[in-house]
Amino acid sequence: MTAAYRELERRFARIAAIGDALGILSWDSQTMMPDGSSDGRAEQTATLTVLAHELQTDPRVADWLAEAEGTGGLDAWQAANLREMRRTHRHATAVPGDLIEATSKAISACEMTWRTARAESDFAKLLPSLSEVLRRVRECGEAKAAAMGLSPYDAMLDEHDPGARSERIDTLFAGLAGFLPELIGRVLDRQAVEPAPLRPVGPFAVANQKALGERLMRAAGFDFTRGRLDVSLHPFCGGATGDVRITTRYDEDDFTKALMGVMHETGHALYEQGRPRDWLRQPVGLARGMAVHESQSLIVEMQACRSPEFLCWLAPVAQEAFGGSGPAWEPDNLRRLYSRVERGFIRVDADEVTYPAHIILRYRLEKALIAGDLALADLPGAWNDGMKELVGVVPPNDRLGCLQDIHWPSGAWGYFPSYTLGAMTAAQLFEAAAKADPGIRPALARGDLGPLVAWLGVNVHGKGCLYASGDELLTAATGRPLDAAVFRRHLERRYLGAWAESLPPL
Amino acid sequence: MTAAYRELERRFARIAAIGDALGILSWDSQTMMPDGSSDGRAEQTATLTVLAHELQTDPRVADWLAEAEGTGGLDAWQAANLREMRRTHRHATAVPGDLIEATSKAISACEMTWRTARAESDFAKLLPSLSEVLRRVRECGEAKAAAMGLSPYDAMLDEHDPGARSERIDTLFAGLAGFLPELIGRVLDRQAVEPAPLRPVGPFAVANQKALGERLMRAAGFDFTRGRLDVSLHPFCGGATGDVRITTRYDEDDFTKALMGVMHETGHALYEQGRPRDWLRQPVGLARGMAVHESQSLIVEMQACRSPEFLCWLAPVAQEAFGGSGPAWEPDNLRRLYSRVERGFIRVDADEVTYPAHIILRYRLEKALIAGDLALADLPGAWNDGMKELVGVVPPNDRLGCLQDIHWPSGAWGYFPSYTLGAMTAAQLFEAAAKADPGIRPALARGDLGPLVAWLGVNVHGKGCLYASGDELLTAATGRPLDAAVFRRHLERRYLGAWAESLPPL
Repeated sequence: MTAAYRELERRFARIAAIGDALGILSWDSQTMMPDGSSDGRAEQTATLTVLAHELQTDPRVADWLAEAEGTGGLDAWQAANLREMRRTHRHATAVPGDLIEATSKAISACEMTWRTARAESDFAKLLPSLSEVLRRVRECGEAKAAAMGLSPYDAMLDEHDPGARSERIDTLFAGLAGFLPELIGRVLDRQAVEPAPLRPVGPFAVANQKALGERLMRAAGFDFTRGRLDVSLHPFCGGATGDVRITTRYDEDDFTKALMGVMHETGHALYEQGRPRDWLRQPVGLARGMAVHESQSLIVEMQACRSPEFLCWLAPVAQEAFGGSGPAWEPDNLRRLYSRVERGFIRVDADEVTYPAHIILRYRLEKALIAGDLALADLPGAWNDGMKELVGVVPPNDRLGCLQDIHWPSGAWGYFPSYTLGAMTAAQLFEAAAKADPGIRPALARGDLGPLVAWLGVNVHGKGCLYASGDELLTAATGRPLDAAVFRRHLERRYLGAWAESLPPL
Repeated sequence: MTAAYRELERRFARIAAIGDALGILSWDSQTMMPDGSSDGRAEQTATLTVLAHELQTDPRVADWLAEAEGTGGLDAWQAANLREMRRTHRHATAVPGDLIEATSKAISACEMTWRTARAESDFAKLLPSLSEVLRRVRECGEAKAAAMGLSPYDAMLDEHDPGARSERIDTLFAGLAGFLPELIGRVLDRQAVEPAPLRPVGPFAVANQKALGERLMRAAGFDFTRGRLDVSLHPFCGGATGDVRITTRYDEDDFTKALMGVMHETGHALYEQGRPRDWLRQPVGLARGMAVHESQSLIVEMQACRSPEFLCWLAPVAQEAFGGSGPAWEPDNLRRLYSRVERGFIRVDADEVTYPAHIILRYRLEKALIAGDLALADLPGAWNDGMKELVGVVPPNDRLGCLQDIHWPSGAWGYFPSYTLGAMTAAQLFEAAAKADPGIRPALARGDLGPLVAWLGVNVHGKGCLYASGDELLTAATGRPLDAAVFRRHLERRYLGAWAESLPPL
């Protein structure tokens, strides 16, 4: 190990500590901060972000990287750490400072406009500022493309999900798009002959919802000595290394959303809490990209907690927690409630079956917009056509259509695919885990996520960024790269029940 | 205004933003952070502290200061700002980095040992690590003394309370020590012939205590859109510029302590919230030292909220808030309860009359320890002798004696005097305010602190660091520098009632 490598470890630990401070400040902004303090918080955040960027782009870092790469003598963890340092550094230095600033300003302006434009369902109002964001994001993508030898869109994907490439996503999503519209139709037909689910009637006191959520978090292994559960308008998993803070939002008339929301964020949190402790402040100790991160929330929420086995255990527990009575509390009703499929307009309200269709739409559109194959002015029409084809409904206005998400106004291009890559990864990990440990499914029927989380700890959480991409990690964990057939099998088993047996193999 | 001055403003704004981030992180550590996250938080705090120190001691800052001082052309605010920048810079650069690090390590070790030593009442256990802290603190003081042309102890005073000098404090404290022991005796005699106060009987639900505290905070003008009230083990006023967070600790058996504790911290908070908004992130916009800061907590708590006028209003309000009944809720009983004087061992539990005696003791001892006139091994004996002389009781052990405060183990030498200088300043400001605005006292009888706080806003809060010292600010506000006679008059009026009239003039 060279002196240069040691300097890099020190430098990246320092950057990580600033990142952790920013994580706590961001959590505070969304949970605790008084309304009138946002200007001051923006100053604090901007100052720390600039300091971290300066530490990252300091010319000495480039020298240390070159020297460490040229010398060798590192073990596998250190070599992976150095590779991640190089990747982070390449992303940080590829874009000139004035372009970063111009992009950041364009984003701030566009986010503000978006709030009004969405409320008023007025795409024309958003168009100028979104054009500016797209222009700047494209320039950033081109700068990164030049530095990294990738296409601009692939460079954007790589920022959120290292190693992800559009050629591969094209194939995977084509696989999904090939069967999803038909599958949705079959699921809806099947649902139509089942009894409609009943909604348990509240009110459900926030304190009881919180207590039940915390009970499930504990059962899943969330460590409350290094984390918290709080309330925010938009639920998230944030905070710092070793101080993981998740949030939810309670509705006193409906406990079901917050409860699964808590378990979703718990899945993210278990990944953060389970990262290898000795490397917490080094790049190799970080999570392996957003798709794998999303897989960890979805394996807990979708694969485990929405499974018939778990819901069978949950129904009487929830009934007791809220003092409920009647048929709405029957396990099979809870299962029908938690697996309801609908052709809807809004991504964040979508169920597990239609969600990928929403994502494929966004992926196609943003790729075309970045490539210049679609003019931004034509987005609403293209959106509605895609919704018709993929989801089977056409939104009546742009508020319920192309204005619904903040991602594009806030500069997060290349982010959407990770939601569905995460869902597919979750299905594949769960299948492998259940095969490797036959005790995992029976434990769910006792409300016990322990065996599943233990398997994830070894195969995902504890690996950090040892593998260079999510696909490498998945291959090591399941024996093969991401495979759409596994996700299809999961959907058919859960939503078409006994029918799945008679289906032809994929 | 020169380019150098503009660079300084930018640099100090950046340092202030880091300080604000540290303030929020510190608040979080004491109110929200899970127990197991303290190591990570220590990393974050150390990293940000080092970054701020690097920005402060960057050689360019010295150049900019010299250039800006040599050029002139600044208005009064800017000139004061430059003076404060120079002062901060002098403190930051006077001590070499390795000594700062050695001191910081000595303090960490000593604080740990202190917790055990205090619990076990074992001064011998603390002696080695406290000797090391004293040695390092003295070296820091000597380094600053050389850079600032002051004695080491004066340099320490100046760090907490710019412009404070021991020669002046000697005189002021000699004035207090001359009458306090006798005054304490007379107050106790007077108290003995009054009925003993009754304690309202609880339980007092935390939610009710919090609601009443917030009501009083609002009445005093605390701005909840830029601040919060929370719970911590040790109450404090912290947070950030424009985001002022105070804390308290509730006892369900006794609402009286938390209530006045909240008003004490509210006094600090009003100072922070009332600092001139245009200068919030510049040194001239900061509070004018710890003595003036303490005066703002004490003018709200001691001068206003513990006044007979205010307590007369508060008694039925509190009674209603807690649904109480009986003679314990009579205004005169509440007054007796809130002005109870006792010869006690513990500073933080001391009343307004005996508190200064505790401080004078610590001031004499720390000055002698720094000067080398008292050996640390002889501290317990000197402490007990001083307690006998000044407070009139001798602690039965060192836990209730010289081990009670964390200040010396944590390196805060030269800090203690500000408590009593603050109490004296509060009395003098209140007297001047009540004279300038005859509506202030009658408003208190209606539970209204508005007129008092308005006067403080103009004469204290809004001045920031425009004046070079607390004494200059006080002279501008009250027509003369700090005067022990005013504090004596306040104590005699409140604690000896009608007797005060017959006293000889001071």
